[in-house]
Amino acid sequence: MISIIGIGPSPEDMSIRALNTIKDSEVIIGYKAYIKQIEHLIDGKEVIKKGMGDEIERAEIAIQKSREGKKVAIISSGDPGVFGMGNVIFQLIDKYSDIEVNVIPGVTAATFAASKLGAPLHDFAVISLSDILTPLSEIKRKVEFAAKGDFVIAIYNPLSKTRKKPFEEAYKILLRNKKRSTPVGIVKSRESGVDVTVTTLGNMRDHEINMSTTIIIGNSMTYIQNGHMVTPRGYVVKSDIHQLSREFYECFLDGEVVEGPNLGCEFYPCHTKGENCTFCYCPFYPCGDSTTGGKWIKDKGVWSCQDCSWIHQDNVVKCILPQFSKIVKEVDDLKKRKKELLKLRRECIQRTE
Amino acid sequence: MISIIGIGPSPEDMSIRALNTIKDSEVIIGYKAYIKQIEHLIDGKEVIKKGMGDEIERAEIAIQKSREGKKVAIISSGDPGVFGMGNVIFQLIDKYSDIEVNVIPGVTAATFAASKLGAPLHDFAVISLSDILTPLSEIKRKVEFAAKGDFVIAIYNPLSKTRKKPFEEAYKILLRNKKRSTPVGIVKSRESGVDVTVTTLGNMRDHEINMSTTIIIGNSMTYIQNGHMVTPRGYVVKSDIHQLSREFYECFLDGEVVEGPNLGCEFYPCHTKGENCTFCYCPFYPCGDSTTGGKWIKDKGVWSCQDCSWIHQDNVVKCILPQFSKIVKEVDDLKKRKKELLKLRRECIQRTE
Repeated sequence: MISIIGIGPSPEDMSIRALNTIKDSEVIIGYKAYIKQIEHLIDGKEVIKKGMGDEIERAEIAIQKSREGKKVAIISSGDPGVFGMGNVIFQLIDKYSDIEVNVIPGVTAATFAASKLGAPLHDFAVISLSDILTPLSEIKRKVEFAAKGDFVIAIYNPLSKTRKKPFEEAYKILLRNKKRSTPVGIVKSRESGVDVTVTTLGNMRDHEINMSTTIIIGNSMTYIQNGHMVTPRGYVVKSDIHQLSREFYECFLDGEVVEGPNLGCEFYPCHTKGENCTFCYCPFYPCGDSTTGGKWIKDKGVWSCQDCSWIHQDNVVKCILPQFSKIVKEVDDLKKRKKELLKLRRECIQRTE
Repeated sequence: MISIIGIGPSPEDMSIRALNTIKDSEVIIGYKAYIKQIEHLIDGKEVIKKGMGDEIERAEIAIQKSREGKKVAIISSGDPGVFGMGNVIFQLIDKYSDIEVNVIPGVTAATFAASKLGAPLHDFAVISLSDILTPLSEIKRKVEFAAKGDFVIAIYNPLSKTRKKPFEEAYKILLRNKKRSTPVGIVKSRESGVDVTVTTLGNMRDHEINMSTTIIIGNSMTYIQNGHMVTPRGYVVKSDIHQLSREFYECFLDGEVVEGPNLGCEFYPCHTKGENCTFCYCPFYPCGDSTTGGKWIKDKGVWSCQDCSWIHQDNVVKCILPQFSKIVKEVDDLKKRKKELLKLRRECIQRTE
């Protein structure tokens, strides 16, 4: 039996199943640096350490040892199916008729890095920039479509001392398809722990990046707040409708409001010059989502829109209006159908990027 | 302190860090079904179980308990940053100035499902089909670009009894952008274990799919072998150059071979009618990769091309030729530069899909 084991990103982040299987194995095979991570578990076992790049050799040794009747553990850092030893073993086991294989998943770098950054993931793409086995054209295609699809992107193996071109090419593609202000998290593993940096796509190259780095690139909704990288999912923060908003929407639903700038209003412009006043009060308040600039006033429980003028942009109003009147038929729908309203907001953020 | 903990897909697949943090916590908050998974660890603790959909409420309770000075664990199945409790907590903690948060990653459904299927992952995209908080337009965009980018795709929350439309829409997009023969793995969690099905995109709807299902859709290279789903990475299987191949490539490099069908050859057609004989012997032999139909002859250590006529297709030959002559200047380059040759093969498989 060969167990293909993901030992996770650190000894404590390894699964109980991985731990028990390693303890129960007779032969341990792995890249030197990964063996080191489980050194406390391998006393008295046959240990076969190999260099980076000997994957086929490691797999063949595992198969031979298994055919000799030994319980073999072949280890990968993170998860063995994500650019790990899983694929190479499955490429070879069909040479033989009697190999039993058991894959033990582990915490992969994307979710480990995310856990250090806050909550940056939503739908996401995992891409390795290593072109040792993968053509550059394939890597570029992946980066391009992940960016165009507005995925959060987790980059593995971004660059090494000798392998810089895929990173440079990927970076160019990202700049063409995402804003320079897109939040980026850089998580670097060291023996002593991890270094965490939160920056932007425009500035990410100012930071040291190497083979032990995982990079998380946000989507169009991702924001940075208090050093954390957050991609909102759109949960409804419950609240009542403010009396002034209620009065405004009564007029709105009666068709009595001005579309576009309300130049006759004594407060015009209350946010920015040229603002569109169609939604004088924001129908999404409180969205509880800092993507467009809003934020909590700490310890007051109040959502502040001081830095958000998104609802007063012409293209945004144009995007919201047709759907809005289908969702909100009476003022209380602002509360009762908040989930649908927040989905409409989300859709319009993305359509008016 | 609030620990946002991923408890993985099963008790044994939980990390040691998650286990220890749960043991050390005073208050445990979670969705009922997830609390059940850690029932053996929570004796004597304050346990707050909530229903699905109460995420904001769970987060607010966690924050309040933490402000009272308690050690709080809020749990998610899998990884808490992948459609789990991470995002909702980070949406709310900025309301307060004194909340410390610690995210503990877990094994997510994509890699767990992959581990049950074989080795289906390469670059991959994770997409949730739940449209409870996400507009359908956003989900469709994700599926479309992931498919067009030739990602392996892991689908979370595919459908529920009442929520079928996103699945139907996603399926239509997948059919438009991937072959019906694309391998698909369906992994369903039950209390008693998991059900694993390997099928194709064309046939996947013949199988029961529900909210406890993770679906892995292969890329253009993925193949099924002995019930396993494998996406090759392109490792070099070492071997010598066969004498007949050596003789052929000596002629080839001297410019003495026929391009196109070699009608004068006594063996023509050795594979299929109309075959292109430019590469009479396959320059990638043995590729060790079943994507194009080759396979190991069990226990003989021999790679068989009996079911692969890929190298004899006109469009394939046209794709390979320009690069080939840059890589192979002398016969021994077939061996010495095998890594580059396998990358060229990979590129041409994708370009001639």
